Amino acid sequence: MRNPVPDYLHEVSDACAGSLGGEVASYIPELASSDPDRFGVALATVDGAVYSVGDSGVEFTIQSISKVFVYGLAVLEHGLEDVLEKIDVEPSGDPFDELSLETGTGRPSNPMINAGAITAHTLVGPSDPDERFERIRAHLSALAGRELSADERVWQSELATSDRNLAFAHLLRTHGIVTESAEDVITSYSRQCAVLVTTRDLAVMAATLANGGVHPVTGERIYAPALVRHLLSVMLTCGMYDSAGDWASAVGIPAKSGVGGGIIGALPGQVGLASFSPRLDRHGNSVRGIEVFERLSHDMGLHLMSVAPPARSVLHSSRVEGEGEDAVRIYELAGVIGFSGAERVIQRIADDPPQERVVAFDLSRVHSIGDVARRMLLECLRRLRLDGRRVHLVDEQGVLPDPDLGGGEMVTPLRAER
Amino acid sequence: MRNPVPDYLHEVSDACAGSLGGEVASYIPELASSDPDRFGVALATVDGAVYSVGDSGVEFTIQSISKVFVYGLAVLEHGLEDVLEKIDVEPSGDPFDELSLETGTGRPSNPMINAGAITAHTLVGPSDPDERFERIRAHLSALAGRELSADERVWQSELATSDRNLAFAHLLRTHGIVTESAEDVITSYSRQCAVLVTTRDLAVMAATLANGGVHPVTGERIYAPALVRHLLSVMLTCGMYDSAGDWASAVGIPAKSGVGGGIIGALPGQVGLASFSPRLDRHGNSVRGIEVFERLSHDMGLHLMSVAPPARSVLHSSRVEGEGEDAVRIYELAGVIGFSGAERVIQRIADDPPQERVVAFDLSRVHSIGDVARRMLLECLRRLRLDGRRVHLVDEQGVLPDPDLGGGEMVTPLRAER
Amino acid sequence: MRNPVPDYLHEVSDACAGSLGGEVASYIPELASSDPDRFGVALATVDGAVYSVGDSGVEFTIQSISKVFVYGLAVLEHGLEDVLEKIDVEPSGDPFDELSLETGTGRPSNPMINAGAITAHTLVGPSDPDERFERIRAHLSALAGRELSADERVWQSELATSDRNLAFAHLLRTHGIVTESAEDVITSYSRQCAVLVTTRDLAVMAATLANGGVHPVTGERIYAPALVRHLLSVMLTCGMYDSAGDWASAVGIPAKSGVGGGIIGALPGQVGLASFSPRLDRHGNSVRGIEVFERLSHDMGLHLMSVAPPARSVLHSSRVEGEGEDAVRIYELAGVIGFSGAERVIQRIADDPPQERVVAFDLSRVHSIGDVARRMLLECLRRLRLDGRRVHLVDEQGVLPDPDLGGGEMVTPLRAER
Amino acid sequence: MRNPVPDYLHEVSDACAGSLGGEVASYIPELASSDPDRFGVALATVDGAVYSVGDSGVEFTIQSISKVFVYGLAVLEHGLEDVLEKIDVEPSGDPFDELSLETGTGRPSNPMINAGAITAHTLVGPSDPDERFERIRAHLSALAGRELSADERVWQSELATSDRNLAFAHLLRTHGIVTESAEDVITSYSRQCAVLVTTRDLAVMAATLANGGVHPVTGERIYAPALVRHLLSVMLTCGMYDSAGDWASAVGIPAKSGVGGGIIGALPGQVGLASFSPRLDRHGNSVRGIEVFERLSHDMGLHLMSVAPPARSVLHSSRVEGEGEDAVRIYELAGVIGFSGAERVIQRIADDPPQERVVAFDLSRVHSIGDVARRMLLECLRRLRLDGRRVHLVDEQGVLPDPDLGGGEMVTPLRAER
Repeated sequence: MRNPVPDYLHEVSDACAGSLGGEVASYIPELASSDPDRFGVALATVDGAVYSVGDSGVEFTIQSISKVFVYGLAVLEHGLEDVLEKIDVEPSGDPFDELSLETGTGRPSNPMINAGAITAHTLVGPSDPDERFERIRAHLSALAGRELSADERVWQSELATSDRNLAFAHLLRTHGIVTESAEDVITSYSRQCAVLVTTRDLAVMAATLANGGVHPVTGERIYAPALVRHLLSVMLTCGMYDSAGDWASAVGIPAKSGVGGGIIGALPGQVGLASFSPRLDRHGNSVRGIEVFERLSHDMGLHLMSVAPPARSVLHSSRVEGEGEDAVRIYELAGVIGFSGAERVIQRIADDPPQERVVAFDLSRVHSIGDVARRMLLECLRRLRLDGRRVHLVDEQGVLPDPDLGGGEMVTPLRAER
Repeated sequence: MRNPVPDYLHEVSDACAGSLGGEVASYIPELASSDPDRFGVALATVDGAVYSVGDSGVEFTIQSISKVFVYGLAVLEHGLEDVLEKIDVEPSGDPFDELSLETGTGRPSNPMINAGAITAHTLVGPSDPDERFERIRAHLSALAGRELSADERVWQSELATSDRNLAFAHLLRTHGIVTESAEDVITSYSRQCAVLVTTRDLAVMAATLANGGVHPVTGERIYAPALVRHLLSVMLTCGMYDSAGDWASAVGIPAKSGVGGGIIGALPGQVGLASFSPRLDRHGNSVRGIEVFERLSHDMGLHLMSVAPPARSVLHSSRVEGEGEDAVRIYELAGVIGFSGAERVIQRIADDPPQERVVAFDLSRVHSIGDVARRMLLECLRRLRLDGRRVHLVDEQGVLPDPDLGGGEMVTPLRAER
Repeated sequence: MRNPVPDYLHEVSDACAGSLGGEVASYIPELASSDPDRFGVALATVDGAVYSVGDSGVEFTIQSISKVFVYGLAVLEHGLEDVLEKIDVEPSGDPFDELSLETGTGRPSNPMINAGAITAHTLVGPSDPDERFERIRAHLSALAGRELSADERVWQSELATSDRNLAFAHLLRTHGIVTESAEDVITSYSRQCAVLVTTRDLAVMAATLANGGVHPVTGERIYAPALVRHLLSVMLTCGMYDSAGDWASAVGIPAKSGVGGGIIGALPGQVGLASFSPRLDRHGNSVRGIEVFERLSHDMGLHLMSVAPPARSVLHSSRVEGEGEDAVRIYELAGVIGFSGAERVIQRIADDPPQERVVAFDLSRVHSIGDVARRMLLECLRRLRLDGRRVHLVDEQGVLPDPDLGGGEMVTPLRAER
Repeated sequence: MRNPVPDYLHEVSDACAGSLGGEVASYIPELASSDPDRFGVALATVDGAVYSVGDSGVEFTIQSISKVFVYGLAVLEHGLEDVLEKIDVEPSGDPFDELSLETGTGRPSNPMINAGAITAHTLVGPSDPDERFERIRAHLSALAGRELSADERVWQSELATSDRNLAFAHLLRTHGIVTESAEDVITSYSRQCAVLVTTRDLAVMAATLANGGVHPVTGERIYAPALVRHLLSVMLTCGMYDSAGDWASAVGIPAKSGVGGGIIGALPGQVGLASFSPRLDRHGNSVRGIEVFERLSHDMGLHLMSVAPPARSVLHSSRVEGEGEDAVRIYELAGVIGFSGAERVIQRIADDPPQERVVAFDLSRVHSIGDVARRMLLECLRRLRLDGRRVHLVDEQGVLPDPDLGGGEMVTPLRAER
């Protein structure tokens, strides 16, 4: 059997291929010479499967997509609190190349605009431009799962036309936000932007974010879950510049684009996505890339605000086995249990408490239990025991590990009779 | 057994009760006289269970929280496309009382700032102020599940100090965004803001958003799923004014606050939340309310970007029953299957195709299947059949309804042997 | 002999008549119906002579030109200090219909933009709209030297389209800059703008400013000299909106334009000028009016920064009459003597003191002496006397009145020998 | 006799010496070390007399005062039209260190803010920083009347803290307003700002502007009259940054300040003024300097909008000499005759034409005649002749040169009988 996923990506890609609008970024001479017809799409699952079509193996410069990961690296090195003192996380409503500094402090609005990204860049590693770039290159390589390098020609070309970024660096220096040589900073920042990646690389990098910070292929933990939540939030509110609101509504996938033509998107717990097509709209976002994401979001239900389809009841059944003194009330739970599911079970038991002296919870059909649901269920078990019941668990696969009810008491496992 | 959920809410509430910072809104005389110590918290599940603690039955004015629902009503009446021509959905980075109109068109940045909310208000119903208010009151009542009414004293008091809103209405008229009498518009808008709700009402209203647009108690469909996605997106990027980015990162729940002291939050598929405490910070958000939401988000894992805990494998087991010609390859699936899960199953089968002539999918342990996953699995079945296999389903509970493989072929159900 | 001044005005007017660019103001329906070809030019001297050509007797609405005089009236009623607390005098660099309020205080940038003019309007007289208008009408009438009245149709038309001004009034109320009903304020303000004037009226009104505040025809003192200096300064820096700098450089005449098509200009000590042509450029200034002023400034040397032509020496001659003990050193002064002239005389005497015991100053050829020059010359005389000289004055026409040298000593007049 | 002018300057200086508010500029380390108590005042007449008191011979850095003259030099080299394409002349309402570029074009608002001054700097001479500085140094030296040089320590110190200016230069490069290396440009610009001048130098430089562009001491013409008018206009509207309106109203002297503590002022046709006191207010203007200028303006009547004292009639007398056919109507004119004076004479003659056949104009008491007045009087003479009169002039001193009446006719001089 041929896997239908690539076929589906082909379909999406073919449907968008005809979008010929937009212009290749021209402000950097070397970028202007990219082939405008290149087009690649890739998708990486949190399990590490990578699907891709078109020019997904062609290298291009990462540009602003690097902002997400270098900001992540800055937080890794300094902690979120310290970084927030230098870079805010508010959408500015401004284009990417607006200065958008906070009045008084000079703090950039967020790390996705250039001023914020330059500041994040200076927070990484030592101040020597070569060493700093090496640190960043290594981080991006760890995310891509292969050794990356910068395109020297693009980087030099970019540096020669980096007046706006140099201006930002100088202005950030006047506020003490940046303290190093503006020239040094923009030199290594330009190099950061010129790191070469493929669409497949980007999908894998995005999948690390989708996977809670663990690289889906290498298994390496790169970011803590809390940092990933933060990065995804910043991407959602600030990643698409002044079309952030439109993107959040229409696509609903935390994303980031770059003027090289790439876009990445990460849907928590689901997939990392990437596209590459150099023709850009006036916001600086890839025209075909946007269309790809809109289709993927729409067709695949990959919208952050999508409500999961109505699930079968978490309390799959409630029955009594045995009679009289031996009667056992068996609650059979099923599916993925989060706060809502646990609440439903508990509410039912609180409303209609078991008459039997022995109560068993059969978790055989349970797929997974969230942290808060686990604590809620354990509290439910503890309260039943306080009410004088004997409580047992049927949990061969350990979906409710360490069933400690407080005070060292453990729930007695009950061998399923089935 | 006593339900531990109220206990938990009490815990959260007690932990936040000590936050005495902030000031009661004073720009409206009537608001200034509210009791600053009132404090209520409520939680409504998508099943319609409502938990609440403290002053959650006390009525207060809905204020800006109404913006979400009246915007929703405007979209219901005119369609999203027409409404977007008058109100954009971009975070402005400005406080709620900034004008923030788009240069040239005069289009307000988003429906959560006053200029946008006033515009949305004018899009509802007939232009007669009483009839318009009645239409809005009825909509809010449907959401609350009970008849609501406006506080006449607050409304009059607000109208008497509504110079800023009158200014906005006049400016919107100069751009043709608003076409009716500024005085009429602000009269009924002030009345909209003065509708009295309890914390419990708000939690139920939020739960309708969390529940994909279906009222969790009455079962009435109020908004289509696509509109709910849109409303939640707008709440996330624009709902907390100029602290939208901070909120998205720290709390991660689409939310909206009002100067009456209320905050609502809706986590798709999970819960509706509401808090009430009149003391506000300088952004106009309830001080204790923010703390409540931070704790609920943190303690209950209610963050939009939270990655679900690693689930047990969707492909629960693969085994062969029978021998030789009669051998049947049985794939047992489990849990909630979305795109990722379907992809995992398909990839496994594509990589390691069954050798047997008969293939059965046992869905007995499957909790639910998403739309795209359903299509992917059907495509997988279709391809297996094209490869010459006979394919059967074990699906007593119909989690994969209408298993049409295209061309009218249906998968043969197989009675589970278990 | 026919006076050539009207001929000259005709020449200027004919030269500009061909300028057909610009559009009649259309935002007020009644204005849109004005005859675009109307064209009048008028010039009033500080002696009260008025010259005019073309449609200079046709009435049109004064519009923003009233801002100068109503601001003057507000200062008359409250004193400059109090008025400055409500209206600043800084050019805003913004168009006339920008809000341009000072951050924090809400103080309008200057009284020539609408927000400042509305504020000035509210400072005049009683708050009753009819009484306030009457006070303003009377003031403008005193300046024009005839009873003026408002065009009721324009005023009503303007009121019906005054959303922007209503918005400003409401916003000014939020800052406490305006405290009265926004509707009342804009009603009487619209009426102020609709006062009907002719080009001749405006020239006479401007001539009052050129004449240090004294009406050139009636002789009534309307503004104190210090207030006139202030009004002219504000006109120069703020009167032509966002082309103030260009106007100051190219024309150099303190001026004010109105959307009715009028422009006034006042050159201190020289003339009041006015033009009328309804077609406006994008700044809202009359196209032909600007050309008229540029020609008048250029051809007539009417630029504020023009340096007067090199004057003949103030110290016309120095000679000795008589001999020995009777020798008298006679200094003959001439022309208009200001600081510079006085300094020149004094320097010469200090450098080359008279050897004679008797010194006479012959002022027969002196045209006028400024205040500071007078004090300087008297000090010079006093010092000569301290040095032991006898000092006499020849001043039949009293250009140096009360020649008190301090301590009660008067200079002895000397009968001119001529 | 001792010249009282220095005594007067001493008086003003003593009255202001007690103003101890303000702070020495600290953003440049070398400036921070200046002696805050230094205080000098100087006054230069258009005849080249220079008066000064206090530390008026102490050198300090010219800083922003150089902007006026380097802008003048740029216009000299390129013409006003070309320079206006790169630098506008509108007051921005912003502080000196705001960027204030025109949307779209990137053109700085005016040459007195840093962005405009940097642009003007780049328009001077060759792009080599040393050669450009030399050209500027030479120009400033010509204005001062002595060889000036830059303070190397201040310049280096300034360059080391010039991030804001470097940022501006880079941003101006992105708009193509500046095309040279930002580092080179700011290097020579910093050097320009560090040129050492004394208060006396500045007064002389200002006097060149007051004198219509002719150096009052060397007699060299440095700027054409039209350029001087332009420079003075720009100083008046833009020279005192965001207190331009206040300055124009309260002082009324075109002026420019520098953070070194200097202020210059130039009153057309009158005097050049300069003060030096390093303590600055929050706008960056010298505190004692402002007080000095306010006193000089007030006490000496040196306000641009001051109306000259009422002059004696220009038409000094009108009499008839002789009888019958020999009767001669003699009009005796007097004083300084500008447009207004000429108009007065002409109006009188037009209203009450001479009955005599011979008319003589006695100009013996006339001090000077402006260009337009000259043309008006000649036209008057021509018309009288057309009316059949014989016209004679009494003009021994040639105040009305070349009395050509058109068509080659000259007025017959008449020997004065006196």
